[in-house]
Amino acid sequence: MYYIGVDVGGTGIKAGVVTEDGKILKSCAIATKKDSHYTELIKDMADLIFKTLKEANVSLDDVKSIGIGFPSSVDDKNGVVIYTANINLNNAPVTEELKKYINKPIYIGNDANCAALGEYFALNDDSVENFVAVTLGTGVGGGIIINKKLYTGSNGSAGEIGHIRLMMDGEKCSCSRDGCWECYASATALIRDSKRAAQNNPDSLLAKNIEKNGGRSNGKLVFDTAKEGDKTAKKVIDNYIKYISEGLIDIINIFQPSVIAIGGGISRQGDNILKPIKEYIKGKTYGASYITPCEITVARLGNDAGIVGAAFLGK
Amino acid sequence: MYYIGVDVGGTGIKAGVVTEDGKILKSCAIATKKDSHYTELIKDMADLIFKTLKEANVSLDDVKSIGIGFPSSVDDKNGVVIYTANINLNNAPVTEELKKYINKPIYIGNDANCAALGEYFALNDDSVENFVAVTLGTGVGGGIIINKKLYTGSNGSAGEIGHIRLMMDGEKCSCSRDGCWECYASATALIRDSKRAAQNNPDSLLAKNIEKNGGRSNGKLVFDTAKEGDKTAKKVIDNYIKYISEGLIDIINIFQPSVIAIGGGISRQGDNILKPIKEYIKGKTYGASYITPCEITVARLGNDAGIVGAAFLGK
Repeated sequence: MYYIGVDVGGTGIKAGVVTEDGKILKSCAIATKKDSHYTELIKDMADLIFKTLKEANVSLDDVKSIGIGFPSSVDDKNGVVIYTANINLNNAPVTEELKKYINKPIYIGNDANCAALGEYFALNDDSVENFVAVTLGTGVGGGIIINKKLYTGSNGSAGEIGHIRLMMDGEKCSCSRDGCWECYASATALIRDSKRAAQNNPDSLLAKNIEKNGGRSNGKLVFDTAKEGDKTAKKVIDNYIKYISEGLIDIINIFQPSVIAIGGGISRQGDNILKPIKEYIKGKTYGASYITPCEITVARLGNDAGIVGAAFLGK
Repeated sequence: MYYIGVDVGGTGIKAGVVTEDGKILKSCAIATKKDSHYTELIKDMADLIFKTLKEANVSLDDVKSIGIGFPSSVDDKNGVVIYTANINLNNAPVTEELKKYINKPIYIGNDANCAALGEYFALNDDSVENFVAVTLGTGVGGGIIINKKLYTGSNGSAGEIGHIRLMMDGEKCSCSRDGCWECYASATALIRDSKRAAQNNPDSLLAKNIEKNGGRSNGKLVFDTAKEGDKTAKKVIDNYIKYISEGLIDIINIFQPSVIAIGGGISRQGDNILKPIKEYIKGKTYGASYITPCEITVARLGNDAGIVGAAFLGK
């Protein structure tokens, strides 16, 4: 049997046919009609699913279930998208609507939660019962697996781990608070901090590299500049590692999962971030000296996690 | 059938015979021999259990299981106490030892987790699947109920919600970090902050009331002084409410439970803390304007929560 996973984003919708063991057999994408009525978006989605099945040469009869990840707060029990920032999809009964086209079990979830579920299955380790995925991207997202199941809370919206407080009266957050972890550990925060540091140290290599790049900074640029020995970039990275690690310590103290996987563009730095993060965290989690430590790793699926995780909502 | 709940503390051990619906039929207590070998402590515990059963006039045949809450990190799967700060109980196979005296199913847990489980059952609301209990005492402890079960993580030590970071580079914590929630929201923190405020405002009523009390402050004194209209005490309380609330927002953003119950001595202030906390939190949790809010309440069982929760580890 196969699973269909759909990953809805602000710009595109991707659908994939996923095998029992989490491989994407075939995927297709279309643009998201952000301002259309939800019925139109769901019709597009149904067409996309049938197209993907056809290209994968898989019959609908061989599909066990369909899962959809939305960049939204969702009521997963009732199949309703509650709120989406950038798409016209509020209070939309999406499951009921998609049922008009496809008579299969349909599951919906938040996209970050789906990505976490995908990464959990990618671990392929049956001994892991509790797992947290953290995505360091434009913001900081995440998803929580408890007793091998996605945890979505009492209203479908749990797992906003980017919005735990790191610093009282800190940087302004996109949510209504300030000082959230996201304001310090996201790629956006790294870019902001690197620009500030460059401004304060105009003779640094960091300032020069940002200038050479048309005034734009990015994660790779800052890491590369630090590797060249620039003290300003190195300080920015050291702080960034501290910010990431402090949030991870919070997550460990709360959940004591077996594994945390770090995803998002920054995670492509691999050991450049993993090693210093592990070093920083060592001994700082509650009871660190006598309890089994949590393993910290980088995410494996990257952009495919959303499709695989959505597909496996029904697994 | 009945359940036996045992609550092990640094000074005393309490055992209770608990009914199916969470009432303590009879409880007895003894002093904790903190420095004795664990075998002696467990022998005392067995004697205490038999004494309590006798006084309750309940036969061991009518007992379904025994649960014990330790002020410790525990390996609940294997029945071993891993680490305790104040009692000689490290790496102690307590379940195996107690089995020598009593042949019943035995469960062990952390005391704060047990109290949370007790408070969860005290809600007596089957619709509540996810629940967090927070105890504002000497420290800040807590316990997490997920899908109606106590969540203890992959190593038995989850739920250290007092040790999430509220303030980077903040007050020194008893764990290895600084700025933990516990450093701001515990009764200990309130007392510290009230003394500081009194020192800085020697003409305030707060300063006078602390002086009258032999230089000692306590939660009730600060709340009472604020109620009398003293601005210094009021500011201390306002900040304290802010600190409690900011941690609660973190917990809501992560867990989105249906209910959070606040326990500990401070919770006896009832509406004096509940009302301003609810007011502070309103609109500040992630997605507050469109998702079902979490109910915040005060704990119901008080000191009995430990016995009832321990008893119900086996329920």
